[in-house]
Amino acid sequence: MHSDQITALRRRFHAHAEPGFLEYRTASVILAELAGMGVPVTTGADAIDVGSIAVPPTDAEKDEWGRRAVEAGSSPDEVAWFQEHGTAVIAELAGNREGPVWGLRVDIDALPVDEETAGDHAPVVGGFRSTTGYMHACGHDGHAAIGLALADRLRDGNFPGRVRILFQPAEEGVRGAQPMIDAGVTRGVDRMLAVHLGGDLPTGTVVGGVTDAMATTKWTARFDGEAAHAAAAPEKGRHALAAAAQATLAILALPRFAEADTRVNVGTFHADGSANIIPARATITYETRSTSNTVLEELNRRAEAAVQGAAQMYGVTAATKAYGRAAVSQPDDALLEDVTRAAAAVPAVEHFTPKGPSGGGSDDAHLLINEVQQAGGLGTYIFVGASNPAPHHHRRFDVDEAALPIAVDLLERILRG
Amino acid sequence: MHSDQITALRRRFHAHAEPGFLEYRTASVILAELAGMGVPVTTGADAIDVGSIAVPPTDAEKDEWGRRAVEAGSSPDEVAWFQEHGTAVIAELAGNREGPVWGLRVDIDALPVDEETAGDHAPVVGGFRSTTGYMHACGHDGHAAIGLALADRLRDGNFPGRVRILFQPAEEGVRGAQPMIDAGVTRGVDRMLAVHLGGDLPTGTVVGGVTDAMATTKWTARFDGEAAHAAAAPEKGRHALAAAAQATLAILALPRFAEADTRVNVGTFHADGSANIIPARATITYETRSTSNTVLEELNRRAEAAVQGAAQMYGVTAATKAYGRAAVSQPDDALLEDVTRAAAAVPAVEHFTPKGPSGGGSDDAHLLINEVQQAGGLGTYIFVGASNPAPHHHRRFDVDEAALPIAVDLLERILRG
Amino acid sequence: MHSDQITALRRRFHAHAEPGFLEYRTASVILAELAGMGVPVTTGADAIDVGSIAVPPTDAEKDEWGRRAVEAGSSPDEVAWFQEHGTAVIAELAGNREGPVWGLRVDIDALPVDEETAGDHAPVVGGFRSTTGYMHACGHDGHAAIGLALADRLRDGNFPGRVRILFQPAEEGVRGAQPMIDAGVTRGVDRMLAVHLGGDLPTGTVVGGVTDAMATTKWTARFDGEAAHAAAAPEKGRHALAAAAQATLAILALPRFAEADTRVNVGTFHADGSANIIPARATITYETRSTSNTVLEELNRRAEAAVQGAAQMYGVTAATKAYGRAAVSQPDDALLEDVTRAAAAVPAVEHFTPKGPSGGGSDDAHLLINEVQQAGGLGTYIFVGASNPAPHHHRRFDVDEAALPIAVDLLERILRG
Amino acid sequence: MHSDQITALRRRFHAHAEPGFLEYRTASVILAELAGMGVPVTTGADAIDVGSIAVPPTDAEKDEWGRRAVEAGSSPDEVAWFQEHGTAVIAELAGNREGPVWGLRVDIDALPVDEETAGDHAPVVGGFRSTTGYMHACGHDGHAAIGLALADRLRDGNFPGRVRILFQPAEEGVRGAQPMIDAGVTRGVDRMLAVHLGGDLPTGTVVGGVTDAMATTKWTARFDGEAAHAAAAPEKGRHALAAAAQATLAILALPRFAEADTRVNVGTFHADGSANIIPARATITYETRSTSNTVLEELNRRAEAAVQGAAQMYGVTAATKAYGRAAVSQPDDALLEDVTRAAAAVPAVEHFTPKGPSGGGSDDAHLLINEVQQAGGLGTYIFVGASNPAPHHHRRFDVDEAALPIAVDLLERILRG
Repeated sequence: MHSDQITALRRRFHAHAEPGFLEYRTASVILAELAGMGVPVTTGADAIDVGSIAVPPTDAEKDEWGRRAVEAGSSPDEVAWFQEHGTAVIAELAGNREGPVWGLRVDIDALPVDEETAGDHAPVVGGFRSTTGYMHACGHDGHAAIGLALADRLRDGNFPGRVRILFQPAEEGVRGAQPMIDAGVTRGVDRMLAVHLGGDLPTGTVVGGVTDAMATTKWTARFDGEAAHAAAAPEKGRHALAAAAQATLAILALPRFAEADTRVNVGTFHADGSANIIPARATITYETRSTSNTVLEELNRRAEAAVQGAAQMYGVTAATKAYGRAAVSQPDDALLEDVTRAAAAVPAVEHFTPKGPSGGGSDDAHLLINEVQQAGGLGTYIFVGASNPAPHHHRRFDVDEAALPIAVDLLERILRG
Repeated sequence: MHSDQITALRRRFHAHAEPGFLEYRTASVILAELAGMGVPVTTGADAIDVGSIAVPPTDAEKDEWGRRAVEAGSSPDEVAWFQEHGTAVIAELAGNREGPVWGLRVDIDALPVDEETAGDHAPVVGGFRSTTGYMHACGHDGHAAIGLALADRLRDGNFPGRVRILFQPAEEGVRGAQPMIDAGVTRGVDRMLAVHLGGDLPTGTVVGGVTDAMATTKWTARFDGEAAHAAAAPEKGRHALAAAAQATLAILALPRFAEADTRVNVGTFHADGSANIIPARATITYETRSTSNTVLEELNRRAEAAVQGAAQMYGVTAATKAYGRAAVSQPDDALLEDVTRAAAAVPAVEHFTPKGPSGGGSDDAHLLINEVQQAGGLGTYIFVGASNPAPHHHRRFDVDEAALPIAVDLLERILRG
Repeated sequence: MHSDQITALRRRFHAHAEPGFLEYRTASVILAELAGMGVPVTTGADAIDVGSIAVPPTDAEKDEWGRRAVEAGSSPDEVAWFQEHGTAVIAELAGNREGPVWGLRVDIDALPVDEETAGDHAPVVGGFRSTTGYMHACGHDGHAAIGLALADRLRDGNFPGRVRILFQPAEEGVRGAQPMIDAGVTRGVDRMLAVHLGGDLPTGTVVGGVTDAMATTKWTARFDGEAAHAAAAPEKGRHALAAAAQATLAILALPRFAEADTRVNVGTFHADGSANIIPARATITYETRSTSNTVLEELNRRAEAAVQGAAQMYGVTAATKAYGRAAVSQPDDALLEDVTRAAAAVPAVEHFTPKGPSGGGSDDAHLLINEVQQAGGLGTYIFVGASNPAPHHHRRFDVDEAALPIAVDLLERILRG
Repeated sequence: MHSDQITALRRRFHAHAEPGFLEYRTASVILAELAGMGVPVTTGADAIDVGSIAVPPTDAEKDEWGRRAVEAGSSPDEVAWFQEHGTAVIAELAGNREGPVWGLRVDIDALPVDEETAGDHAPVVGGFRSTTGYMHACGHDGHAAIGLALADRLRDGNFPGRVRILFQPAEEGVRGAQPMIDAGVTRGVDRMLAVHLGGDLPTGTVVGGVTDAMATTKWTARFDGEAAHAAAAPEKGRHALAAAAQATLAILALPRFAEADTRVNVGTFHADGSANIIPARATITYETRSTSNTVLEELNRRAEAAVQGAAQMYGVTAATKAYGRAAVSQPDDALLEDVTRAAAAVPAVEHFTPKGPSGGGSDDAHLLINEVQQAGGLGTYIFVGASNPAPHHHRRFDVDEAALPIAVDLLERILRG
């Protein structure tokens, strides 16, 4: 597949940006493309365990985005299948000789960002601005196109071993990787790659393995107390809102750790009702982050204690639930040698760094890499620079399309061995 | 007007319960009844200053409840008038001889309570259960019927002075009295009465003047900070949610006052966004109450300090707004003599107490009474017992209809002089 | 005993005011006076269970106040006895005929108030200003004198039944009654009296039974965490100070109760250390109060939950300890009849009210009364007005000595039957 | 001066460890040694501005440590001079040829650590364990000895320019450097050095310039409200303790900064009084730290807002005061060349790193370096490894005396040019 075809695919994904776990149109385009190439695919229970999705989409959301996908041209049957079995797609490529099993994660979901409408925004000019209310403001449209281009190139079978290209839903909120792991997608994988475009690096720059990602967990905590009239019987109530307020302050006051960088935030707070009622329920969402997986675990333990302690203070109950998770992984030197060799062979890669920081983001691809590493395999998370006109998650973000063939060439070179 | 007619009116109001400031159907029925009696009315700018409603209904709410009123039989033109000019109605009755100007407040709005559907609930049996999602669970249906019955009886003009019957919207949340005062409805009033059914007193019992009401103010506080990515640049944010959490704890910790009973509550908390964003906005609603108007003012000052201080702590701004207000008033002995005499003349009044506690509720009728008292007039807030099957605000509440004629007889007797 | 002797005794106590549980000089004067009268006494283990004193004085305090008592003229042996066995003294009087067993509580301790030195302050004029740093600013000097005067008058045995006059230490902080109860002092008592001078009532006024006292509990809560260097290893610490701060806010935010008046306070907070150390220990003292014993218990349960929940939030432990307790009691009508009759017979009692409010104070005499009432006996807490020049606890307080013989006459009359 | 003399001096200082600003004995030994060498000294107003010491020692402390110094052999007159004019001493050495003005900071105070008494602790064995209750647990005894040894070697004048050896009091708590700067000690200095032994580096290792120190500020915040009886008139009080508790939580919740490492702590909290009094005063101490001076300033601004906002919440006032300050500085490459050259010439320096981390400590020597750098000069903070048996600040700490001559040799070599 050539650059212009890759670009065309990327624009097609861009124009119909979809939320995590609701990528019905995106997944059906991926399926159709792979079918056109004759590449075998895995979907459904072997690609994603929908039962392990912590906060699955609601029926209303499924209906809405299903309807849109059908309107955009997807088959109603296929959409219904995705609605029931999940939107993960895996391309399965077999080489013509012995070799390792490779995994490559590309993500496919978009963000709740209203895309720029100004005439100087390239997607407006090119007629592929998203009209769904969501936007590919993190370049996953490009990632999906890279995955398809790679499948196209490798379908000649002229490579050692096997390659599994994982089209992962719901990277935003770090929600999609774990249910794919739970479906077994990393079992048997020897070398796990993830690729991301951008990272505030210019086109032509490649970092072979990111070293400063942040592990993260996203949580909801629900406090359940008892309602009562705030004047007639305030003592009959159990003030869930007050408990959540105390928990909020304690979570924000979690200590710095000398051994690793951390972040904490309480991002939302909801307690409905009325000023004259002792509120019986309050819900907060919060996140923890760290450059260390073990520090993250400790932060999570302490945040849980903060929540449960706050509940105890007010005689209410609290229940927490992790709805998103990402880990950090470190690149394996042995694998970086492959990447380095490949990078040297791609002329458009002007600046190559084997290992380096990427700005501290979180990505659940590290969960996939960790999984493979823990089973004795190797892994790395590759950043392919892209000279984008605006930061990630910005409404004027637009991935530099010149970076797409660089990523495809690099990955092809790695996988050809 | 006889008991069965009063009952019929009450049931008519009951069946179409409406929220405060949206009582389009209720007000149009009141208007039609008064027109049928030939009683002059005041509506619009002289009845209520819609510009002084702190939190007016949204256009969507106006449209929705207007549509329902028209469906229920109200004239579209009349509904449009109420939508623009407010739902307050005043019946103006002139006596045939010299005498004081009396005011009588009856309230007409309902509560967001889903009425009981069980077969043993009288409104179900009688076929007048509310189907609007709102419910007359505080007896305002009865109050409105009492007001109309009184207008009917007094239209003979056989009484001294004049009588203004104020059909007040939005007593729930104590929101409607102030804009009526701002429209001038108490100007020239010499004696102000308010009447309430129930109060956990059995039918046949009357308290001439309530002494333990609670003044209250209902507040919203909005905190505006700055959003930022919680991992990439947490220091760029200004955490509005954290400020609101601190304010919450400080409001709940406002001191008891030795000199008067008090209440405080933070009833709702809303901060939207995402776990990975420093939240830029948070809104809480809270209320203060006291058996003393001056203590209430001090509580309000301290709550304001708590809010502004919390904002300062986090570098955010805060804006508070009172959206509901009620005061306390004490009954005037001179007026209680009239009430006592009248009660003695109504045989169905079996137990009469000139002054007494009512259970500590808040009602903005006290604002009207205060207003008249401060201008040199007299006032009292009368409780007419009603043996109701469930507490006020409960979904199985149903006002004992036997109490309706007692209230009408008592008030008629007071006003006839 | 005549007025001038009562006054002389009161002044003697006044001049050497002592803290609770350290009333060595006071107790030795009481003992000497009773011995002089030939009245049997109970002291030591049958008067007070020193083991049940929650926070006993330190050895340093015992030494200091013992030294002062000896300097003031007490026998070293007697002081040593009090230091070991406690400062409670009971005068045991037997009547010459059948009758009930009466108890009368008089308290003997003083307050940490530096007494006025100005020339217009009566104790300065009279040469009996306290020089100990403590001051009888609540009239317990008068109470002790009343107890002795009564013992003197009743030693003729001309009364029915028996009388136990309980000279109680440490009423301030409501600490002394419970250990006396634990020693069994109320066992067998049929009618329990307590008397207090003042109460913002003028001399000549008597309230037979106080109805609005407040039950109270005084608490310490200690939080134990772990120290760590705040820069080198903040995560190694467990922040006891932060836990105590959270507990503080939750205690202050305990709800109002509709059914009874309440108070809460966190009065002290101590966490030593250094700005660069995560603090391993913090201690707060707090109190709860209510006009209802059951509401007080519920407040205490909730405060305990606030403390334990706060500890849990920060991974620290918390231990609470009640160091002072008072209950409320209601006077028995049957007993008030006796008091009423007696008051009528004392000419100096110009205004008598059988039951009434006293201003909402707390006194652990109510524990003694409760104890007797629960065993089927009767009790009341009597206020004898005294036209004092300054409020209780003020450095210019001085009990009106004219009130002393009124109290003695009234009590004598009650006890003579 | 040879190794054994340096060691002897270090032991002499060790045996009489003194707190910051109270180093009377230490300073008098330094003065006597310099006098013995014939080296000119600066003391008093030109060495330290005692008026700019934020929290100077109390008179009682001055008396106590002065008494001890005299007991240890210092002249009463000299001690009196130090008590009034401060304990800073500067050795002024002039070279025999043109050259830059060098400054070298050595610190002289000790820590409130009770030194180990076990027989295997070298100072016990050697008979120089500190008996003052303070301990040289951070090696300042060695630093002072190094300063003296260097003065001794350089008094030959055989070096270019001039050398000022600053014997600084009160490095612990980072309190002494600022008042020395305020006295003008860095004026005219071209090259500023600081030296520290240990840093978890073995003897023989040297880091030419530390790069990861933390800037810090130590604060007290005092909240002044109003006292009131917690039962009789809680509303009359203004709860300083509650304000301090809210401030505590807000300070602990100060955000992480993406751009630099930070620390925050609230280390002490004091509010005296009684459970039944609304507390009128509360004092907390807190600290901020960052690897960036500008981030530290921003943290300080936000902590101040937290304190002032908390005060506003409760109607109290708050006053903050910085009692300790340290900055971070980065070593100048030009100066590191000198250090590198010198290190190469000292055989005992086995491992030399021009720049490197030291473990993240704070030291107000960086203020001196910053001061010189801002005036156009150069500076660096040198770590000289010492194989100590226990961590800094530990009661079993003991500086490896073999490191002392290495430091002296290195510094001599740098200063000889």
